[in-house]
Amino acid sequence: MSPPTQVPNGDIAAVLSASAPVTGRLAVVYSEVQRSRIDHALPLPSVLRNSFKIVDGPASSAAGNPDEIAKLFPHVFGQPSTLLVPSDSDVFRPDQKLKIGVVLSGGQAPGGHNVISGIYDYLQDRAKGSTLYGFRGGPAGIMKCKYVELDADYIYPYRNQGGFDMICSGRDKIETPEQFKQAEETALKLDLDGLVVIGGDDSNTNACLLAENFRSKNMKTRVIGCPKTIDGDLKCKEVPTSFGFDTACKIYAEMIGNVMVDARSTGKYYHFVRLMGRAASHITLECALQTHPNISIIGEEVAAKKLTLKNVTDYIVDVVSKRSGLGYNYGVILIPEGLIDFIPEVQQLISELNEILAQDVVDEGGLWKKKLANQSLQLFEFLPEAIQEQLLLERDPHGNVQVAKIETEKMLIQMVETELAKRKQEGTYKGEFKGQSHFFGYEGRCGLPTNFDSSYCYALGYGAGVLLHSGKTGLISSVGNLAAPVEEWTVGGTALTSLMDVERRHGKFKPVIKKAMVELDGAPFKKFASLRDEWAIKNCYFSPGPIQFNGPASLAVNHTLLLELGAQA
Amino acid sequence: MSPPTQVPNGDIAAVLSASAPVTGRLAVVYSEVQRSRIDHALPLPSVLRNSFKIVDGPASSAAGNPDEIAKLFPHVFGQPSTLLVPSDSDVFRPDQKLKIGVVLSGGQAPGGHNVISGIYDYLQDRAKGSTLYGFRGGPAGIMKCKYVELDADYIYPYRNQGGFDMICSGRDKIETPEQFKQAEETALKLDLDGLVVIGGDDSNTNACLLAENFRSKNMKTRVIGCPKTIDGDLKCKEVPTSFGFDTACKIYAEMIGNVMVDARSTGKYYHFVRLMGRAASHITLECALQTHPNISIIGEEVAAKKLTLKNVTDYIVDVVSKRSGLGYNYGVILIPEGLIDFIPEVQQLISELNEILAQDVVDEGGLWKKKLANQSLQLFEFLPEAIQEQLLLERDPHGNVQVAKIETEKMLIQMVETELAKRKQEGTYKGEFKGQSHFFGYEGRCGLPTNFDSSYCYALGYGAGVLLHSGKTGLISSVGNLAAPVEEWTVGGTALTSLMDVERRHGKFKPVIKKAMVELDGAPFKKFASLRDEWAIKNCYFSPGPIQFNGPASLAVNHTLLLELGAQA
Repeated sequence: MSPPTQVPNGDIAAVLSASAPVTGRLAVVYSEVQRSRIDHALPLPSVLRNSFKIVDGPASSAAGNPDEIAKLFPHVFGQPSTLLVPSDSDVFRPDQKLKIGVVLSGGQAPGGHNVISGIYDYLQDRAKGSTLYGFRGGPAGIMKCKYVELDADYIYPYRNQGGFDMICSGRDKIETPEQFKQAEETALKLDLDGLVVIGGDDSNTNACLLAENFRSKNMKTRVIGCPKTIDGDLKCKEVPTSFGFDTACKIYAEMIGNVMVDARSTGKYYHFVRLMGRAASHITLECALQTHPNISIIGEEVAAKKLTLKNVTDYIVDVVSKRSGLGYNYGVILIPEGLIDFIPEVQQLISELNEILAQDVVDEGGLWKKKLANQSLQLFEFLPEAIQEQLLLERDPHGNVQVAKIETEKMLIQMVETELAKRKQEGTYKGEFKGQSHFFGYEGRCGLPTNFDSSYCYALGYGAGVLLHSGKTGLISSVGNLAAPVEEWTVGGTALTSLMDVERRHGKFKPVIKKAMVELDGAPFKKFASLRDEWAIKNCYFSPGPIQFNGPASLAVNHTLLLELGAQA
Repeated sequence: MSPPTQVPNGDIAAVLSASAPVTGRLAVVYSEVQRSRIDHALPLPSVLRNSFKIVDGPASSAAGNPDEIAKLFPHVFGQPSTLLVPSDSDVFRPDQKLKIGVVLSGGQAPGGHNVISGIYDYLQDRAKGSTLYGFRGGPAGIMKCKYVELDADYIYPYRNQGGFDMICSGRDKIETPEQFKQAEETALKLDLDGLVVIGGDDSNTNACLLAENFRSKNMKTRVIGCPKTIDGDLKCKEVPTSFGFDTACKIYAEMIGNVMVDARSTGKYYHFVRLMGRAASHITLECALQTHPNISIIGEEVAAKKLTLKNVTDYIVDVVSKRSGLGYNYGVILIPEGLIDFIPEVQQLISELNEILAQDVVDEGGLWKKKLANQSLQLFEFLPEAIQEQLLLERDPHGNVQVAKIETEKMLIQMVETELAKRKQEGTYKGEFKGQSHFFGYEGRCGLPTNFDSSYCYALGYGAGVLLHSGKTGLISSVGNLAAPVEEWTVGGTALTSLMDVERRHGKFKPVIKKAMVELDGAPFKKFASLRDEWAIKNCYFSPGPIQFNGPASLAVNHTLLLELGAQA
């Protein structure tokens, strides 16, 4: 097959308004690098290249409250983990034709298209004549039965490409009885044997609910999840990483490395870089390990040590001050997007503000402030004026303060400036401080996947095909031994319920896959913690350069994964 | 020579306070990609690989006001352009030992280290035993005689690396008689035969003033300039491009391409991307040609058509509205950093505000507004509140409004929002609009230079060595025929005075190298203009991917250069 120069343009609006598979596509031309990636050969783990059988382990439990999880998932709870092992002959019927659906759910992560390619190739290789439907625009596509039949020509131009535009994604959830009904109707209408849900923690919880629901109705449709999120916060022992994390971190690390060289060459700026990752600080930690910045704030540590905003500011100011004494009036500082959410006093202030603003008028004289608790008042007065205003003015539709809109990096620059000015007056600081703010976010979600993410996703998808073919449901596709070469990777599935705990919401237990936070006693954080004092004072900047698809570094895997697997000191 | 894993850390403060060459260096570890680049073989134009002689053309003039330029540069005005041509035997004495200084001036651009490598290698190849001094921290290093002697070990780890940290840069100018005196003293102290000034338009003007000054004092020190700036606004017929532009635009284009895939996958954001380039919009234009965004604002066109901010807003709103009708509520919009400077009415408003704020108190009631001219008042009222406040509050040390601090992309988002809300009320727009703002800047100035910039800089430096060796002064190193393979590139020098015009400042004529603006009848803009209507409505997004050093696209050259050379349709 020769590489086409035009690829389909999946547009959600157009897509969801069409009642049949979209055929009229807008032309998009490919760059030379993109085109070269299409034909990049994807290695498969050796177990997938030969005959294999499926071996089940012992029954599983849950991450917490197994009794409640068992009650919520009576049909799929307790399933064993499953592993593919070499076998003399294939256990599956190669003449069986499957009808499989696939859906992308939530924010983009590099590699999603390769999961779909993997599923498709599995069906071609081991269940010839099967059909693969791509639901368009996320779970809404399932509920509205908007889909496209994916064939070789359709999939080909998306191989090893970034983005989710093959079938697009969406943030809807299948939650209400009515919505489950719609999903059932779609499954029946398309006579689905299986469904692959590619998504994060919420989407995989949703996948398990669907699996439970289909099974409870005695439907044949099985559901398999795949771990996706650049934030890296969906993982467990059997699912060592979520796809997209590797690529996104390398894109950010390239940019951080460039900014470091800039900082060192110019000698006069402190670059405050906010990185994606609202709930967990894995991206910030990984980028720190890749680039060695002077300061990196890890939200989980801030929360564990119950640090205040003043503590964080003082820490930065101390380093800036010490560096200035050494002649360095520049540096690079990494901050996770979700920093504010990790600081208890900020949460307290915001909840008090929400209360006050719901009832009272904010008088110019500041009488309203008397309603704040002492600690909250102190914090409020400590905040830069622009942030104070933002807290008082910007509301979401429910009247709540919009924390997400606060540009943490700018706030910190202002607070550091104020504190340094104070120290200058006291004579304890003599340097010059100029802050530059950055937010590295969207440019990392849709880059061309690294060789690692390309191969990992392909194996996840291929493995998901195996799991569905073997009749499994309620599992998440699990590819392991990732520090080894691809051919030695393990392939299997893990019970989604084993990742779950319950949360109490509105008086009901709700199942959740707990986000994997940065563990302060985990190898990645410990390595960071052992080096950060040196990085703070000396300039150990490390510049990874742009992602390469050939030659040096093209096979590198992120530090977090290697350290967690014990493969890197 | 085996690649060292530690490279020197050039730190301006440490550097300028040391009276002797710095020997104690902090350790910096190299990434795999960086390390692989050190030994990347640099091709030389064939004319430089064999024996050559120098051929002078006819006498030169000036870009404007030749009589005034002749008066300002009596000793170097009118020099011919010079070209290297193959010769049977070398014309220079290989036994001559030269003492050459080199300085980096102004903001960083990828490739600066290779210019220095080129000079050094020329001296090694053709004037063995010569000495190369690197002045530290920019022109201040010349004035303060702060330098390091550059030898093979010192230069080696910086080959093909980004940044200016080998000897760092600075923004000082050599302007006053006292400063020229200091430069003379340094030249005498080091017994300099020549000096290479690597910089932008101002720095090259300064280089020419130095050349004139040295010659007028009958000193032997010659001065040669090299064209550096990522902004791409230092160029002429004989100097087809400035180095760094190629790399910076490719870094930005990768990020824009990623954001485009994100926009298409998500289907709900308009990304407003502000790009570096205050004086000229070459970067925005080049990135547009590389990525095909829906809208790109070119400052020079805005100025030529005397567009108002309302005109620009309306143009964006019209496209957003039209796209919404087609089902696209997303897009990507590029904006040059200097947009506001191109809009006459904004300049007018700001100068009126400066006047008013210097004398009056801004009363809450808004009486002060009566002092604004009608058009300025209208514009002020049209601006978003946050921008109004910024204009009224943020002042530089001279009490002037800080235009540079205005985040143009955020301002435009707010104005577009307001205008769309109006149209929604009128019933002429039915879509949803969500803006996301980006500023792509610092990450592009210090990336690893592309193969093009690596080779171009090396040839510029090598050629500068030739020019100094042949006794030339007041020229800018000129490497041409850049659309051809490196070996066919031409090498020579162009009289710096031929690039100059005069400006009247404080009653005196001041020589300036005119910035090369985007020409509205030039090939790059014309190509853009012929395609932008299609790009606006259809989604022709083009995603270049990360810079590759091997394989596909590793030899690509930017569109602006190719189009200007007539090498691309």
